Amino acid sequence: MKSALRNAYYFTLSRYSLNPNPSLLQIAPFISTFPSLPSVLSRNHPFGSPLCATLMAGGDYDSPQTSPLEKQFEKFRVQLEDSGSLRERIRAVVLEIESATRLMQASLLLVHQSKPIPEVLQKANSQINVLKGLYNKLAEVVRECPGQYYRYHGDWRSETQMVVSLLAFMHWLETGNLLMHTEAEEKLGLNNSDFALDLEDYLVGVCFMSNEMPRYVVNQVTAGDYDCPRKVLKFLTDLHAAFRMLNLRNDFLRKKFDSMKYDLRRVEEVYYDVKIRGLATTGDSVGDQGAQKI
Amino acid sequence: MKSALRNAYYFTLSRYSLNPNPSLLQIAPFISTFPSLPSVLSRNHPFGSPLCATLMAGGDYDSPQTSPLEKQFEKFRVQLEDSGSLRERIRAVVLEIESATRLMQASLLLVHQSKPIPEVLQKANSQINVLKGLYNKLAEVVRECPGQYYRYHGDWRSETQMVVSLLAFMHWLETGNLLMHTEAEEKLGLNNSDFALDLEDYLVGVCFMSNEMPRYVVNQVTAGDYDCPRKVLKFLTDLHAAFRMLNLRNDFLRKKFDSMKYDLRRVEEVYYDVKIRGLATTGDSVGDQGAQKI
Amino acid sequence: MKSALRNAYYFTLSRYSLNPNPSLLQIAPFISTFPSLPSVLSRNHPFGSPLCATLMAGGDYDSPQTSPLEKQFEKFRVQLEDSGSLRERIRAVVLEIESATRLMQASLLLVHQSKPIPEVLQKANSQINVLKGLYNKLAEVVRECPGQYYRYHGDWRSETQMVVSLLAFMHWLETGNLLMHTEAEEKLGLNNSDFALDLEDYLVGVCFMSNEMPRYVVNQVTAGDYDCPRKVLKFLTDLHAAFRMLNLRNDFLRKKFDSMKYDLRRVEEVYYDVKIRGLATTGDSVGDQGAQKI
Amino acid sequence: MKSALRNAYYFTLSRYSLNPNPSLLQIAPFISTFPSLPSVLSRNHPFGSPLCATLMAGGDYDSPQTSPLEKQFEKFRVQLEDSGSLRERIRAVVLEIESATRLMQASLLLVHQSKPIPEVLQKANSQINVLKGLYNKLAEVVRECPGQYYRYHGDWRSETQMVVSLLAFMHWLETGNLLMHTEAEEKLGLNNSDFALDLEDYLVGVCFMSNEMPRYVVNQVTAGDYDCPRKVLKFLTDLHAAFRMLNLRNDFLRKKFDSMKYDLRRVEEVYYDVKIRGLATTGDSVGDQGAQKI
Repeated sequence: MKSALRNAYYFTLSRYSLNPNPSLLQIAPFISTFPSLPSVLSRNHPFGSPLCATLMAGGDYDSPQTSPLEKQFEKFRVQLEDSGSLRERIRAVVLEIESATRLMQASLLLVHQSKPIPEVLQKANSQINVLKGLYNKLAEVVRECPGQYYRYHGDWRSETQMVVSLLAFMHWLETGNLLMHTEAEEKLGLNNSDFALDLEDYLVGVCFMSNEMPRYVVNQVTAGDYDCPRKVLKFLTDLHAAFRMLNLRNDFLRKKFDSMKYDLRRVEEVYYDVKIRGLATTGDSVGDQGAQKI
Repeated sequence: MKSALRNAYYFTLSRYSLNPNPSLLQIAPFISTFPSLPSVLSRNHPFGSPLCATLMAGGDYDSPQTSPLEKQFEKFRVQLEDSGSLRERIRAVVLEIESATRLMQASLLLVHQSKPIPEVLQKANSQINVLKGLYNKLAEVVRECPGQYYRYHGDWRSETQMVVSLLAFMHWLETGNLLMHTEAEEKLGLNNSDFALDLEDYLVGVCFMSNEMPRYVVNQVTAGDYDCPRKVLKFLTDLHAAFRMLNLRNDFLRKKFDSMKYDLRRVEEVYYDVKIRGLATTGDSVGDQGAQKI
Repeated sequence: MKSALRNAYYFTLSRYSLNPNPSLLQIAPFISTFPSLPSVLSRNHPFGSPLCATLMAGGDYDSPQTSPLEKQFEKFRVQLEDSGSLRERIRAVVLEIESATRLMQASLLLVHQSKPIPEVLQKANSQINVLKGLYNKLAEVVRECPGQYYRYHGDWRSETQMVVSLLAFMHWLETGNLLMHTEAEEKLGLNNSDFALDLEDYLVGVCFMSNEMPRYVVNQVTAGDYDCPRKVLKFLTDLHAAFRMLNLRNDFLRKKFDSMKYDLRRVEEVYYDVKIRGLATTGDSVGDQGAQKI
Repeated sequence: MKSALRNAYYFTLSRYSLNPNPSLLQIAPFISTFPSLPSVLSRNHPFGSPLCATLMAGGDYDSPQTSPLEKQFEKFRVQLEDSGSLRERIRAVVLEIESATRLMQASLLLVHQSKPIPEVLQKANSQINVLKGLYNKLAEVVRECPGQYYRYHGDWRSETQMVVSLLAFMHWLETGNLLMHTEAEEKLGLNNSDFALDLEDYLVGVCFMSNEMPRYVVNQVTAGDYDCPRKVLKFLTDLHAAFRMLNLRNDFLRKKFDSMKYDLRRVEEVYYDVKIRGLATTGDSVGDQGAQKI
């Protein structure tokens, strides 16, 4: 009987081990609660719902020595530990995401040294499946506690912003276009998931990508690609105009957007440099004699 | 037909290329999803699900002049504005919670001037129903975006901690016991709600209550109640012991718990003051002769 | 009679001991001041004059339970709330000013992409009437509390500086001249108003406009307008010289003026770039042979 | 005629020397504006109205060499210099106010050494007339520019807060009551003035006074005045309760009010110390034997 009470006790708030052979007497009180089980299961409890943990019984509180105060704090102890373990599991996956990200960055850095884009992208692309797997792993962990995405969101926020910025940069190198939010979700296997790509993480990631463009343009021109400035300028101008449509209040996102203006001006300066020297080959070049350039 | 396409457009929060002449075959998948709308309603979409916002079209998306980039950012604009409006509505309710809290505090401050406890509690208690209504209002607002409790939690966190500390202090004045987490939820009408009282908010609120006890004890002794220190000391000792069961990692909660130690020590000193002067009348007084006081 | 006393009570914003049975002799001085109410309306009371707030009694001041202390603080509460509400109303108008400003900026950004100036200006100009209406709205709100322009000035200062910079830039695009302070006031409908355009806001706005000129010149040259640098250089040189006439002490304005020097130098460099390549076609070009370019 | 128009132009915006022998032709346009002069005189021009400065002509601008740009900036130069001079004159008076304040503080510090209160107050009181004169001087200076109280308010704000705190402390020593806002204005001769005592300056000054009470109480008890804690406690409790009526948003004032709570608690502790030792002589003392005290 004691264990039955114990099971019922934990059922609503803590982790407990399933008694594999519950006697009817023991599960009687449970049975009466079972019909309501689905509602409890789906209840969007903001903190540790019973589904967070495996259903295990946690201790006999009929003992006269245990005060109500101690019982309550024992439950709290379990809940806080569950939350702590969850964070540790999230951290483990996030560390792996960081590793994959570092590998992608290492590959992508080669574009600044004028390695052929297809080659650079091939190596970076191989990490995308790795990331896909890792984000799915992360989604599984977080799924154990419905409604808690934002409770732990801070634990993967900046890593995700970095991932988005790299994916967006790669997409631009491949297509010349901005990676859409839904496309980013698809690449990470999050498009059908309830664990989605937070909108602001996506937007910050796009701003980070924009911060890399000036450097790319400078190095491309150094390598002799005089058409790059014009293309990047068009891209960044459209992107900046699109961002202007948003009425940004979020201070961090706002600051990131403000910094995009400096990326734009830097690229305008590089474009000016090539145009005034008659180096730009498309459209309105100054003089067609490609030879006389300074 | 256009509005149906538009709703479907937002429905999955993704970009579809709009075929200006949709055949039934094309919109069939949309139509078949309409009956399952309720499941989408409960779907734990971590960020603004389309149902969070009024399903208003963000412009005519069939227009060929609007680029995909602009269309995507127009959707973002709507989502960010919805999030912003939600925050404003939350803020409005939270300001009312602050007002009710201020009134409760004004009443409770009278215990420090030795007003009779029932009188003090009566005024303070009248605010509890007000708070109950306000938290229900808050729950309604947040319920519009399932799974977003923790996204906006910061907007009511400190106010809720203050509310818990006042409720717990009042409960102690009435019963001499600690207000339980579930009892706190009941008082605020949150016990059957998916909008629950976050565990850490409850614990921090209890710490805040503990911070007020030394002041209460000092003023009670000043007013001649020499039994108060003993009672409060027992209460705080048990409370501190219960907190010690928790393995606290949360920095803020950890610091609050650490400060409880100073509350305990202050009350021990007051108890010492009354005992050594033979003022404590119950049980273990030092000498029964009231005359010899030190 | 009581309400007359109450109005008179607030009228001079001071505390009179309330005689519950006022004789005519006592209220006579109050009555004689009523005809001069208009002069009080215009009286430059530095803080919330009673006319700022609805003349609502702050409770029954004849009640013996309310101490003088409480009566005084009840009046303070009303005054501070009035001030707070005024700020909220100002903020609401300022947010609308920000929106209109954003639309103007969005239009003006197109000059950097060489859109035809008349087209760009047409869109931007349409916002000027909107701004005119908004500043009049703002003036009305502030007019309720005479002499308080500078008390709330910080709430519209930076937005106004931005407005001035945009108006000045548009004026330069149209005429090649600096928008005068009085002209700016006219455009915003503030020329006959007691709510005027603060001189330092105007000057800071002009500095902000100057900060945008280098970018404009660079993009114009990129687009093939080689006469632009010379014109902008003349304009900025004269503007900088005019600013040098001022003995600036204000730190922020001083810094903004100092930054104008960098705008000037950048434009000088661009002018040098076009001259040395023989691109500048007017007047003093370096060699007429377009072919030999460096 | 042009020069007449120009003079009229300057009349409203700049300093100009009065031509002692104006020809009728020159003053004709002025004459027509004279009837409206009172409206210009009383016009609440937020920045340097012509009344700020002596009405002197600002030079003959018929010279063809002076561009409109230069003329405008010459006017600005004058306005900014006028504002600068005004600040210097304000600063001079404020420095004198600081001196008088220092003398008052020096006298008041003697209460902490148990000098007889009447003696201490006599010296401090002698400075009140000095302050009265200085604030009237300040009012005269600021009166030259109607509507500019708050433009320069920062230049005397903290000094005034200090003055209020000293006046309030002295008033408490004399009467045991809080110096009212209107009483403070009277002492400084500002009760009939349009240059009034800003409400928030008064409130901050009162908070500063409260910050001094714990030290006063401690020293009084040390000197043997065991009734002081009870009186001060009642005063601070009522004051704190009155402040609680305000819905403070102003961050600085809010923080000052929050610090008042610590003053209150410190005095409660001192009162506790005297009560538990049976030292307090009024009402509920512990034991009547005044002799046995520790």
